[in-house]
Amino acid sequence: MSKLRVGMVGYKFMGKAHSNAYRALPMFFPETAVLPEMTAICGRDPVGLEKARAQFGWQSGETDWRKLVAREDIDLIDINAPSDAHKEITIAAAKAGKHLFCEKPLALTLEDANEMLVEAEKAGVKHMVGFNYRFAPAVQLAKKLISEGRIGKIHHFRAVFLQDWILDPEFPLVWRLKKEIAGSGSHGDLGAHLIDMARFLVGEFKEVIGMEETFVKERPISESMTGLSATKSSDDAPRGEVTVDDATLFLTRFENGALGSFEATRFAAGHRCTNAFEINGSKGSIKFDFERMNELQVYFTDDAEDVQGFRRVLATDASHAYMDAWWPAGHTIGYEHTFTHEVHELMTAIAEDRQPVPNFHDGVRCQEVLVAVERSIAERRWVALKEFQ
Amino acid sequence: MSKLRVGMVGYKFMGKAHSNAYRALPMFFPETAVLPEMTAICGRDPVGLEKARAQFGWQSGETDWRKLVAREDIDLIDINAPSDAHKEITIAAAKAGKHLFCEKPLALTLEDANEMLVEAEKAGVKHMVGFNYRFAPAVQLAKKLISEGRIGKIHHFRAVFLQDWILDPEFPLVWRLKKEIAGSGSHGDLGAHLIDMARFLVGEFKEVIGMEETFVKERPISESMTGLSATKSSDDAPRGEVTVDDATLFLTRFENGALGSFEATRFAAGHRCTNAFEINGSKGSIKFDFERMNELQVYFTDDAEDVQGFRRVLATDASHAYMDAWWPAGHTIGYEHTFTHEVHELMTAIAEDRQPVPNFHDGVRCQEVLVAVERSIAERRWVALKEFQ
Amino acid sequence: MSKLRVGMVGYKFMGKAHSNAYRALPMFFPETAVLPEMTAICGRDPVGLEKARAQFGWQSGETDWRKLVAREDIDLIDINAPSDAHKEITIAAAKAGKHLFCEKPLALTLEDANEMLVEAEKAGVKHMVGFNYRFAPAVQLAKKLISEGRIGKIHHFRAVFLQDWILDPEFPLVWRLKKEIAGSGSHGDLGAHLIDMARFLVGEFKEVIGMEETFVKERPISESMTGLSATKSSDDAPRGEVTVDDATLFLTRFENGALGSFEATRFAAGHRCTNAFEINGSKGSIKFDFERMNELQVYFTDDAEDVQGFRRVLATDASHAYMDAWWPAGHTIGYEHTFTHEVHELMTAIAEDRQPVPNFHDGVRCQEVLVAVERSIAERRWVALKEFQ
Amino acid sequence: MSKLRVGMVGYKFMGKAHSNAYRALPMFFPETAVLPEMTAICGRDPVGLEKARAQFGWQSGETDWRKLVAREDIDLIDINAPSDAHKEITIAAAKAGKHLFCEKPLALTLEDANEMLVEAEKAGVKHMVGFNYRFAPAVQLAKKLISEGRIGKIHHFRAVFLQDWILDPEFPLVWRLKKEIAGSGSHGDLGAHLIDMARFLVGEFKEVIGMEETFVKERPISESMTGLSATKSSDDAPRGEVTVDDATLFLTRFENGALGSFEATRFAAGHRCTNAFEINGSKGSIKFDFERMNELQVYFTDDAEDVQGFRRVLATDASHAYMDAWWPAGHTIGYEHTFTHEVHELMTAIAEDRQPVPNFHDGVRCQEVLVAVERSIAERRWVALKEFQ
Repeated sequence: MSKLRVGMVGYKFMGKAHSNAYRALPMFFPETAVLPEMTAICGRDPVGLEKARAQFGWQSGETDWRKLVAREDIDLIDINAPSDAHKEITIAAAKAGKHLFCEKPLALTLEDANEMLVEAEKAGVKHMVGFNYRFAPAVQLAKKLISEGRIGKIHHFRAVFLQDWILDPEFPLVWRLKKEIAGSGSHGDLGAHLIDMARFLVGEFKEVIGMEETFVKERPISESMTGLSATKSSDDAPRGEVTVDDATLFLTRFENGALGSFEATRFAAGHRCTNAFEINGSKGSIKFDFERMNELQVYFTDDAEDVQGFRRVLATDASHAYMDAWWPAGHTIGYEHTFTHEVHELMTAIAEDRQPVPNFHDGVRCQEVLVAVERSIAERRWVALKEFQ
Repeated sequence: MSKLRVGMVGYKFMGKAHSNAYRALPMFFPETAVLPEMTAICGRDPVGLEKARAQFGWQSGETDWRKLVAREDIDLIDINAPSDAHKEITIAAAKAGKHLFCEKPLALTLEDANEMLVEAEKAGVKHMVGFNYRFAPAVQLAKKLISEGRIGKIHHFRAVFLQDWILDPEFPLVWRLKKEIAGSGSHGDLGAHLIDMARFLVGEFKEVIGMEETFVKERPISESMTGLSATKSSDDAPRGEVTVDDATLFLTRFENGALGSFEATRFAAGHRCTNAFEINGSKGSIKFDFERMNELQVYFTDDAEDVQGFRRVLATDASHAYMDAWWPAGHTIGYEHTFTHEVHELMTAIAEDRQPVPNFHDGVRCQEVLVAVERSIAERRWVALKEFQ
Repeated sequence: MSKLRVGMVGYKFMGKAHSNAYRALPMFFPETAVLPEMTAICGRDPVGLEKARAQFGWQSGETDWRKLVAREDIDLIDINAPSDAHKEITIAAAKAGKHLFCEKPLALTLEDANEMLVEAEKAGVKHMVGFNYRFAPAVQLAKKLISEGRIGKIHHFRAVFLQDWILDPEFPLVWRLKKEIAGSGSHGDLGAHLIDMARFLVGEFKEVIGMEETFVKERPISESMTGLSATKSSDDAPRGEVTVDDATLFLTRFENGALGSFEATRFAAGHRCTNAFEINGSKGSIKFDFERMNELQVYFTDDAEDVQGFRRVLATDASHAYMDAWWPAGHTIGYEHTFTHEVHELMTAIAEDRQPVPNFHDGVRCQEVLVAVERSIAERRWVALKEFQ
Repeated sequence: MSKLRVGMVGYKFMGKAHSNAYRALPMFFPETAVLPEMTAICGRDPVGLEKARAQFGWQSGETDWRKLVAREDIDLIDINAPSDAHKEITIAAAKAGKHLFCEKPLALTLEDANEMLVEAEKAGVKHMVGFNYRFAPAVQLAKKLISEGRIGKIHHFRAVFLQDWILDPEFPLVWRLKKEIAGSGSHGDLGAHLIDMARFLVGEFKEVIGMEETFVKERPISESMTGLSATKSSDDAPRGEVTVDDATLFLTRFENGALGSFEATRFAAGHRCTNAFEINGSKGSIKFDFERMNELQVYFTDDAEDVQGFRRVLATDASHAYMDAWWPAGHTIGYEHTFTHEVHELMTAIAEDRQPVPNFHDGVRCQEVLVAVERSIAERRWVALKEFQ
């Protein structure tokens, strides 16, 4: 059993999720050909870093990512720092010959994402992008049904990613609401997941047209921010401009003729994390909602005439992807193990000397769609993806 | 097309429901071999009666049921007066040679119910008892699946009938809470429906044991009561004793070896009318909830291994019982049409010169189970149904 | 109690639905100030007409709508013939001084719809358009919550109308698939309902952009067609071109700043009649799905912190619109009574000498949005509604 | 931060679940006053043991539990071996002064369970019993609502634990189907969890009456069995007698006057792990289904009249028990973390020098109810819990 030595940049929400995945992998997937060694974690604040290192179980810490990248005892760099830092770290790590695991979105611009892909390929390293939702067993089942032709030709894909954490106008101006750090708002944060899901399950986009809105244009300035929460600022806190979208919607036509509808918003009261899609094909349909991530709703047109209807499949049987590694049928798993399965793919791909899926190509394709939507909004017209090729 | 002349006793909740069914039948089931003529309606209060007669569309009114029964221009007597009046009217009508349609429960006692059956049979008339829930298309689908062996051998039946209309201790002492008029409380009112459903779908009961409770033992005395509502009495209204059960639960073993669980209560906060059951067989399962009466949940063990799950069948396709008479697929029908279908069976049976189903035999069998449960409660022991044979 | 004498053109799906509403109104809403008299029904085929007349309970029949319109014993003309006949009949009826009740969509073109409105206004008659879904009690509850400010400022409206009745490529070329008769496909048939719902609940549209697709471009030619079904044609039946859209999607910005997403399709496998919407506001959210038409899902941001969540409100309590006329709480009603309530509004408005809501103004506004979407598709650009003013 | 050195007996399903909890605790609850050290794992088969040791991350292994119990570097013994081994190990460990964490059911007989409690108390050690379902955040929310009086006086508790893993008559005769090892079947395995949940949420049982059935009385003899799966035996495998119940149902009256209904079965087709209950009180109701373990359905009678309905609360907000340790709101957790929270209580209680809850007292009370039900079945009569005091 060989080991892969991981160095990780970032220790907040995603850093915690990735650390947990590295810890879970040997416990639940002991047969994985290569297993991760949690060699070093990196962050700028020495106090926060050391706390995270001890809590998450990393062997060492670094406060300068350049040092991390330079370390010879590291095989792979995991980048989950804020999006504006992805490019520089990734390229440096590639040049140092490290394998790459980068959170989505790859970069703030399509140019940057492309450059990251080019450099990773030039360096000959493995590269993965963090579209973790692909790895829910119910989503894997959706993929399987589609691949086996059991849903037929796809006519429709409609997806929403609905949250409500910034609905309150007094919620502070955290980094995710600043364009220079986050790149975009709900579009890049949530919409990117929907776009990747569509590419995974339906295929490539042909053209798009969208619209966006920032419902709350100024917010109190916040002292600190981690994950999706923030320090409550005082009532008379100065206000700053929100420079990203609160909501972005777009329509698409896929290369294979299917029609798509997408909506990402942080203003959907009552939805904490509704990442949901439905696919309608010529032989059946599929529905998924991440708030019930262990379930897939499936409909087949060839069911007996008197008992046609959507089935609620609890994707926890041993026959479902990854599930024989967990608990007996009917015992659900949580959000965090989308990352465990993702890391399983990453390690397995490295062991098999192939690119993991999804990789930077997927990251770039996703970024193209994000940018195409933004362009369609700015120019108020349909934008074809071929404009980017 | 021949006509059957109906005389109906009672004009409150059930009188309205029956009237509506007689009106709907020719409109939606014009091919029915015999159609009802709404000849006369009967009630004691002349003012209320005339109002109901005009509203519901009856040709004439009678304030004395004896006169109604004696009328030569009446072929069938429909009895939906309070339960304590069923026996006398039914037997008189039978002796007058009228066909009979009697609301459940047939009578206040098993002896009375038996006598009603004997007299009806002796008179050679057709007799039906009002277990309307059998006639929901989704329930008919359940019956079909079971009859065709698609659910296999039945292991379990569990049913609840949950309401909350008397949860408030200040809700007044209406007639349904008085033993001398209603016979029993939730047991005879709600439990009777569950028992009939079990007999319809599973088979005959072998033995039972139950328990009951009256949570609120005294209530303000009410001036008037219709349907399930009542005039709010004043704060200092005198109180009277509640003499029926608020809730009755029982276990059963069926003749065919299945196990059953039953609960009827008017104290289930949040449940306006949850009349629900589930059946588990060796080849599949069925779930029904009347609050979503157009739906049946169905599970088959022989579905492909990776897509096993309960299907939500919307029983509104033309292939579902009765539904080609209504609207296109996906357009639901309401509670009231369980009665329309019930009356369809009644008229069709009379046209075909056979007993309708369910008839007084079913009413008596149901009453036996009701009484067996009451005896099991009183004597704190299992009671076998064969004690009644 | 005065009577309004109705003459109705059309006796298929909508003719049946309207007839049933006229029959139900006096039974369930006897206090309505004006009640309908089912004076005459009109259709071209004498045999079919007479059958419908007898079945639905109309006093007389006419095979020429011109004769119907000319009859002096008629106060209101109800037009539910195919869409291409709406304009001529409506205008003739208006000129004859008859009140008007026209099914949606008003006409095949916006110009025609406008002309119908102008003539109706000129004639000084009452006019109503058949957007029946407004009249589901759960939808009325949604309207009430919004009107009372309990949902706050609306940010999002997303709606789908999903059916699957023409998914099979062998389903024949019925009239609803021919542009010259139906005007458009899913867009005018289903999308029109969504647009009206949005106008009812959110407000006026500002601009739109859409896309459409016809997945199956040729179909076997059918002998006959009624409602949504058709005579199965032979295997070697000649094929004809489908000239309407199978699916139309569009995005919108409302005048009040809300964002909207719309999808109407007849290719959503597993969906018999999913007419569903969700509204997200600053204080709460609302969800509705017509397949469970008695339910409304409601969320409030000011619920206690630990018990926030969507509530499933069964809109059958006496406190809900129209429901005290029906059955006790928990007893659901069906699709057909959206029409009963619609006719209640029609009769009441006439009694009160005011225009019913929705009326031809609403029909024209809806048509404007339909046309704006079509133009946006043809010209591949955002179309502002002010282009029509 | 002090450490508690754990020695664990058993390494199958429960051993894996407990190991995972010990691993997760320091990562997600780093502030826990005492954290577990995974000192030694124990099992009879040296090969299987070593594999489990390495996989689960234990420091050492023992093949004889007596040696484990005797080790001075162990503070707590965790017993999750098959039920027939619980008593001997537990008492030996108690006598060795070790704290105790024993899976449910405590023992095969009430006498044994009582003896275990007596010895644990005599030894002055801390003792916990593994009713893990108490620790789902949604269940903790149910407890909170009840404790704060927000549901009012409880009238009804109804619970089912439905599985289907032995529905197939060819499923082999695994140890869980043998009375001498498992004690009982669905009753002790599944019903025990329901009983504990009822005691946790409602209170003590007063009297019970039950029934049971073994639907498949003989099964093929299996070579090996782990968790809930087994080696498929050959077609002509010899058959052995099933000596436990396939299903057990019972009714109860609680000390506080509430009525209870319980059903545990392994023959409910379509139910992989439906551990569900509903509570109806005078002010509201609660529903829980473990297959959607992050959700609690809650109803309050004092909600505004027009928006009363069950709310779906996704118990993943920071305000819900344990959830601030995990992920942002809307991101669900899985089955396994009921154990993580359970171990959190165990460690915290030891740090605070108090008995954990639930402890052996709860284990004995649960066993009393299990035995009372069995006696009620054997003697076909109501059995009062006071018979055991």
